[in-house]
Amino acid sequence: MGSYAEMWRNLGLDVELHEEVLQSIGANYGKQVLSQSGRPEGMRHFDEGVHESHGGRVQEIIEAREKGAKMIGTFCIYVPDEIAIAAGAIPVALCGGTNFSVPYAEKSFPRDICPLVKSTLGLAFSKTCPYAPIKDLGVGESTCDAKKKTWDILSKKVPFHILELPQKKNGRDMNLWREEIGEFRSAVEELTGVAVTAEKLKESIALLNRRRRLLAEMNEFRKLPNPPISGTDALVVMQTALNVDPARFCDNLEELNEELRDRVDKGISPFDENAPRIMVAGCPTVMGNWMLHHLIESSGAAVVCDESCTGTRFFEHLVDESGDTVDELIDNVAERYFKIDCSCFTPNDERITHVPELAREYSVDAVVQYVLQYCHTYNIEAIRIAGALQAEDIPAITIETDYGEEHEGQLRTRIEALLERVTLSV
Amino acid sequence: MGSYAEMWRNLGLDVELHEEVLQSIGANYGKQVLSQSGRPEGMRHFDEGVHESHGGRVQEIIEAREKGAKMIGTFCIYVPDEIAIAAGAIPVALCGGTNFSVPYAEKSFPRDICPLVKSTLGLAFSKTCPYAPIKDLGVGESTCDAKKKTWDILSKKVPFHILELPQKKNGRDMNLWREEIGEFRSAVEELTGVAVTAEKLKESIALLNRRRRLLAEMNEFRKLPNPPISGTDALVVMQTALNVDPARFCDNLEELNEELRDRVDKGISPFDENAPRIMVAGCPTVMGNWMLHHLIESSGAAVVCDESCTGTRFFEHLVDESGDTVDELIDNVAERYFKIDCSCFTPNDERITHVPELAREYSVDAVVQYVLQYCHTYNIEAIRIAGALQAEDIPAITIETDYGEEHEGQLRTRIEALLERVTLSV
Repeated sequence: MGSYAEMWRNLGLDVELHEEVLQSIGANYGKQVLSQSGRPEGMRHFDEGVHESHGGRVQEIIEAREKGAKMIGTFCIYVPDEIAIAAGAIPVALCGGTNFSVPYAEKSFPRDICPLVKSTLGLAFSKTCPYAPIKDLGVGESTCDAKKKTWDILSKKVPFHILELPQKKNGRDMNLWREEIGEFRSAVEELTGVAVTAEKLKESIALLNRRRRLLAEMNEFRKLPNPPISGTDALVVMQTALNVDPARFCDNLEELNEELRDRVDKGISPFDENAPRIMVAGCPTVMGNWMLHHLIESSGAAVVCDESCTGTRFFEHLVDESGDTVDELIDNVAERYFKIDCSCFTPNDERITHVPELAREYSVDAVVQYVLQYCHTYNIEAIRIAGALQAEDIPAITIETDYGEEHEGQLRTRIEALLERVTLSV
Repeated sequence: MGSYAEMWRNLGLDVELHEEVLQSIGANYGKQVLSQSGRPEGMRHFDEGVHESHGGRVQEIIEAREKGAKMIGTFCIYVPDEIAIAAGAIPVALCGGTNFSVPYAEKSFPRDICPLVKSTLGLAFSKTCPYAPIKDLGVGESTCDAKKKTWDILSKKVPFHILELPQKKNGRDMNLWREEIGEFRSAVEELTGVAVTAEKLKESIALLNRRRRLLAEMNEFRKLPNPPISGTDALVVMQTALNVDPARFCDNLEELNEELRDRVDKGISPFDENAPRIMVAGCPTVMGNWMLHHLIESSGAAVVCDESCTGTRFFEHLVDESGDTVDELIDNVAERYFKIDCSCFTPNDERITHVPELAREYSVDAVVQYVLQYCHTYNIEAIRIAGALQAEDIPAITIETDYGEEHEGQLRTRIEALLERVTLSV
């Protein structure tokens, strides 16, 4: 990525530290992703997506901003990108999955908040996030205590909009959410100076529905007896969906899906025929965070389903494309996002029934509940999920961890114990 | 408390363990509260309030239930007791402040959630909470991630109602809150079979406003140069307000306030004239939790203000008593509770300005921000509060701790360092 050195310097990044970061991420990516054998050829696009996330993608956004576009930084899949795109903005998810940046956040934020929040803040604070200086607006939400209160502080320092997600799913909550989405539309229109029209909104809805359909299609292949793609690769695809230009992403995924169909026909799979099938459920595993999938798959199992914000929660439920007015379409958008079954809701019964449902659909042998440390909502909800899985005799463990590599050995031991349990019971 | 042994046995408590608990609480109360010299005579009522919290108060509620009353267990000062009382229910706050019960919760709940939640659950799980078996309805709220998700689990096991508190303070949030309060009314009416009338609601509003006025009056004395009551005793008064019958509590506090007025006239104070004046700000310090106040005051300082749910947040803002219909009065109730400046809101600017305001009103020399471990909202908000205090040159420290007594030495060291700083700068 050396050719972007000048760009990074112009953005005010700490170029030396940033270089270290890229090398560390690159080394992890090499060890945890590129080292896999028999990868689909089409994965090159997504390897490039990761590789260019601090380079080409940033340059592309800088060029678009020079032509008048605005960039919006988001931290959650509840932010309706359709509306941002219809107003001519470029939404990019800025969630951090790197461990190196955590200590930079801990200098001024509590240590005992989740690693995702700390990693994200630490990237900005350490001047190693190229998006921080080109972001025209941050959009936070009220999905968890740690993020909600972090926005209070950030919004005093940089342009920031906070989207309130209600905590129940009653009619009055839907009303509040609809109004919040309306306010988000106004905030984005004010930022870009471009009005959201029905035509543009129909286009952006169609574009992001296409992305969802293609991701769902890729995940359909994972339901098959010998999946043509590893869980680690599928994760990389889903992670890059949060960063890469959506139209290009779709073209690339279309190509990959064709190849996967062909591999299915030919019986090509990265897994042994008897590899235990694992679902990872819970917190997102964002770009930079490939450890869990790598540990599971390098232990001889196959991750066949991700029940997370970097998995099913991201691509399930399409936005209804019917409706001709902006208001109707915005309602459709609001309704789609309100269906997401994040643990931030009380109660969240949909998820308690959905996880075992997914376990059956993907024919999984065991579930690994993945909880980021100090994420109270997924951590406590894991108790009910564990109960629901036990009721269906699906083996499961709950792993609570941060991004620290020092836990790798312990995690591997727990995963191997789970796999042994699964293999013995087959 | 031996005479209640049969009652506790009938309630299904673990009588032996319960006896240990009472002795442990009694020992702490002796060491941290009763050991103070020159206490007001009127404190005997509140000592009794603590002493009878597992005895006489429980018996009283059992007797009321035999006559048809229903008991509601609450966990937060956002629950509008006025409405419960108007429907003939007896609301009792069940928040736990004891350390012994924490491990009982940790057996089935995550360790890294706040000690208040764990202590509360642990009391119920260890069969040492006499209210658990006589509670007809639990009322939880969505004020923090840990509680919100805990209710998901409890509500599957015992009758439970969840009150959604919104996360912003816009008009649409107020609308949602008003509707939630309306739903709470219906839930309570259904429980008791008693309709809330304007007359009864006017009565309960007047009763709880009286309690607020008397607490405010007691706290006015703490603003004086030589407060006639220690912060530890004032805390005991506020803690018992959450348990004791409100009318009896008011009578007792009226008597105490008269005595305090007299002590002011006579110049009687438990403090040295030059004792540094401290405000404790942040998380509640509920019954069983007297350590922080004891440490501060046994180090020679005076706690003169509690900016917490067991302090200003409990008694500030009266419910408007005007209005003649149930709907008008319920709106008044909703509006009063919506003014509470809990850190669960985003943003929560009122509190950022209110803490330094209180610091001036109570002429404090320093602020101790008290954060229960893993309470993300107060923990992160502490950063902005610290900034606001620093801007006014008010010395402050933030203490993040659980209920563990093993931290006592460390806490004392930090408090002494703060007091030294304050004394040197005088």
